[in-house]
Amino acid sequence: MRMYDLIEKKKHGGSLTRQEIRCMVQGFAGGEIPDYQMAAMLMAIYFRGMDREETLALTMEMASSGDMVDLSAIEGIKVDKHSTGGVGDKTTLVIGPLAASLGVKVAKMSGRGLGHTGGTIDKLESIPGLSTAIDRERFFRIVNETGIAVIGQSGNMVPADKKMYALRDVTATVDSIPLIASSIMSKKIAAGSDGIVLDVKTGSGAFMKSLKDSVALAKEMVAIGTGAGRRCCALITDMDVPLGRAVGNSLEVVEAIETLKGRGPEDLTQVCLELCAHMLYMAGRGGLDACRAMAEEAMADGRGVKTLAAMVKAQGGDESYILDPGRFPEAAFSLEVKAEEEGVITHIDTEGCGIASAMLGAGRQKKEDVIDYSAGIRLCKKYGDSVKKGEAIAVLFASREELFEGASKKLLSAYTIERGQEGRPSENRKRIYARVDENGEEYYPDPIS
Amino acid sequence: MRMYDLIEKKKHGGSLTRQEIRCMVQGFAGGEIPDYQMAAMLMAIYFRGMDREETLALTMEMASSGDMVDLSAIEGIKVDKHSTGGVGDKTTLVIGPLAASLGVKVAKMSGRGLGHTGGTIDKLESIPGLSTAIDRERFFRIVNETGIAVIGQSGNMVPADKKMYALRDVTATVDSIPLIASSIMSKKIAAGSDGIVLDVKTGSGAFMKSLKDSVALAKEMVAIGTGAGRRCCALITDMDVPLGRAVGNSLEVVEAIETLKGRGPEDLTQVCLELCAHMLYMAGRGGLDACRAMAEEAMADGRGVKTLAAMVKAQGGDESYILDPGRFPEAAFSLEVKAEEEGVITHIDTEGCGIASAMLGAGRQKKEDVIDYSAGIRLCKKYGDSVKKGEAIAVLFASREELFEGASKKLLSAYTIERGQEGRPSENRKRIYARVDENGEEYYPDPIS
Repeated sequence: MRMYDLIEKKKHGGSLTRQEIRCMVQGFAGGEIPDYQMAAMLMAIYFRGMDREETLALTMEMASSGDMVDLSAIEGIKVDKHSTGGVGDKTTLVIGPLAASLGVKVAKMSGRGLGHTGGTIDKLESIPGLSTAIDRERFFRIVNETGIAVIGQSGNMVPADKKMYALRDVTATVDSIPLIASSIMSKKIAAGSDGIVLDVKTGSGAFMKSLKDSVALAKEMVAIGTGAGRRCCALITDMDVPLGRAVGNSLEVVEAIETLKGRGPEDLTQVCLELCAHMLYMAGRGGLDACRAMAEEAMADGRGVKTLAAMVKAQGGDESYILDPGRFPEAAFSLEVKAEEEGVITHIDTEGCGIASAMLGAGRQKKEDVIDYSAGIRLCKKYGDSVKKGEAIAVLFASREELFEGASKKLLSAYTIERGQEGRPSENRKRIYARVDENGEEYYPDPIS
Repeated sequence: MRMYDLIEKKKHGGSLTRQEIRCMVQGFAGGEIPDYQMAAMLMAIYFRGMDREETLALTMEMASSGDMVDLSAIEGIKVDKHSTGGVGDKTTLVIGPLAASLGVKVAKMSGRGLGHTGGTIDKLESIPGLSTAIDRERFFRIVNETGIAVIGQSGNMVPADKKMYALRDVTATVDSIPLIASSIMSKKIAAGSDGIVLDVKTGSGAFMKSLKDSVALAKEMVAIGTGAGRRCCALITDMDVPLGRAVGNSLEVVEAIETLKGRGPEDLTQVCLELCAHMLYMAGRGGLDACRAMAEEAMADGRGVKTLAAMVKAQGGDESYILDPGRFPEAAFSLEVKAEEEGVITHIDTEGCGIASAMLGAGRQKKEDVIDYSAGIRLCKKYGDSVKKGEAIAVLFASREELFEGASKKLLSAYTIERGQEGRPSENRKRIYARVDENGEEYYPDPIS
């Protein structure tokens, strides 16, 4: 089997067999297939696509290219959650402990932030003492004892995906649904959970800007998950505005704790309840309505905070920060960003908000950048809100005052404020656009949103 | 300017500017742009194509990436000819001397054969003593004195094209009309002639199997040629059967000499007269009909043989072989390939004939292979001919008898002989399918064929 022939086949719209995909992935990961041939193949896949069988085969080959985590040492049903990433997305910090407090086992491997999106690992590391570099045995023990642990991805997971993603990143072949789906799902399959709830973000702050593409990606990923023998479903949720009001690491941890206590922003609360309900559903805890009721009850009595505190303690962190979020240090400097005109906020460039936050020190432009955990943004006004001229739309936090100039400009330009829109209701925005169930059926507009 | 952005632009169907193409070609040739990015770009070009301006810009950048030959030391109008390659294509050996004998200056750089097609340089080197590695000054002098010289391409011409072609060859991106056209034309532009006659082969032995693709390639190349300020036109000629009856190096030289004397096979003669007429036309020697009459007259009186002999002598070869082609040594062994059934030849797999010839030692499978100049095939029967069972359809020539078994099988399988086709006329095959004039207008079915 020659890679040349596989490129030729895909170029003409053919389907690669499981065996061909195996040779390709193993040859590429092993260095026998050069980058230039894989680059040509990736571009051919961009134009020709891959069918479900090809995408599943690619996923499985990438998943098995490195360590496959065996979670059998953890009792009970393990359910994972994956978000395609966004701004202010702290759902893992809410629904992980919430689902764990209801008996679901959450053995989660998360990533760091890059560019305009944050990462769960960075957020957790804003808690003094907490470590996410935990060996497997201790990881299993913590999940068994507290119901949840969140660690960084280990070094030798999905090496083929890492190598392929690095190549896609420099050859303009990232935006291909089968390639995105197989990349994400290879990590999830290798991570070993029984169930997977996918949170596919859609809108200006998401990788997928349109609902159509988001649904297509969700269906592709659910098909892979079930094809790999896992229980898997997806929600398509809003990322056309930042989720919640806090953007930045410790700011988001505090907001997550508030949400776990039932006092969080309405949009974040709603998305978290629905995601948590789906995690319970994947764990076989009953019908969706029953699961939703369980999640609401747990949020109402605040039991998730205890689980989060227990996890933080088990991972070496100072749990007092969870029990008293006022302990998180506030940034040395803050600045109110004020509306320059009167009107209604008709659009927020969510990616722009994320970039503004990164400019304040909350994120990384390059992998090597150091994060300032207290930096970030508190959004006072969001989509649909009316503002007066001079009224604060957001508060910026940073450790160095000189960062405000660029970040405040960036944030202001991310807001569109229009006059004559006052009749527009403030809360007409959907939080959950669609749902893809285990059978790949899509439902929308979803009655639950 | 980042190569990533150029790939992204082309991927979405955008047109690259002249400046972008310059950066790309120079960056790639200089090694700053890695193979994997160029491979992704080439595949994007395969799917999205390039418009005329892009293709011209790519051609000019590749042409100027190395030596551009300045032919001004040669008096008169220099006209080049390029064939896209085929089996039995010895037209250069006929029309070069014929056009030169009529006052056109032919300063030609040719290539070697590879795979199923032969190369003019190999054919010429079957003449004892002849050298095609000639320095520029001597090359110019020979053309000035004899009207024609044919040499190998110099080391530092079109290095960007060479590097890009090598990459296309391993990434399944050869079969893209703008890439083929720019690759061919970059060499022709760099070679410096004032006029260029393109012979685009079509059919089973050609790179372009369909007339539609052949016309498209011809139009693309003519547009580049005229865009580069050269006079340029194209003929689309038949390569669905081998051209003439001889396949193999010295066998083809002998057939070319016969054709120059007006005693060649009808198909080869017709194609040569038409190509020569177009070379005269490009040199401004009158209307096409007048040029055709001049070519016919020169062939009738055999003056081209003298010009060929003069060129051979000037290039160090033994001219007596031209004046008395019986001097060419015959191969040590020959074998008649006999029809296994009665009927009419309804199809010849021309590529198969070329491969059979290469198997006999006349061609190269790999660049390093040594050529046996006396090896090859004489076709006794061609398309439309009737054969009896046991009648010879071809004679094979080789220096080692053991080569016959594989080659005769290959040749036999290249012929399709059918019963009940006897009514089919033997000469219904077109030699010239279409013509593309300097303005890019296409004419077909051409009344001249």
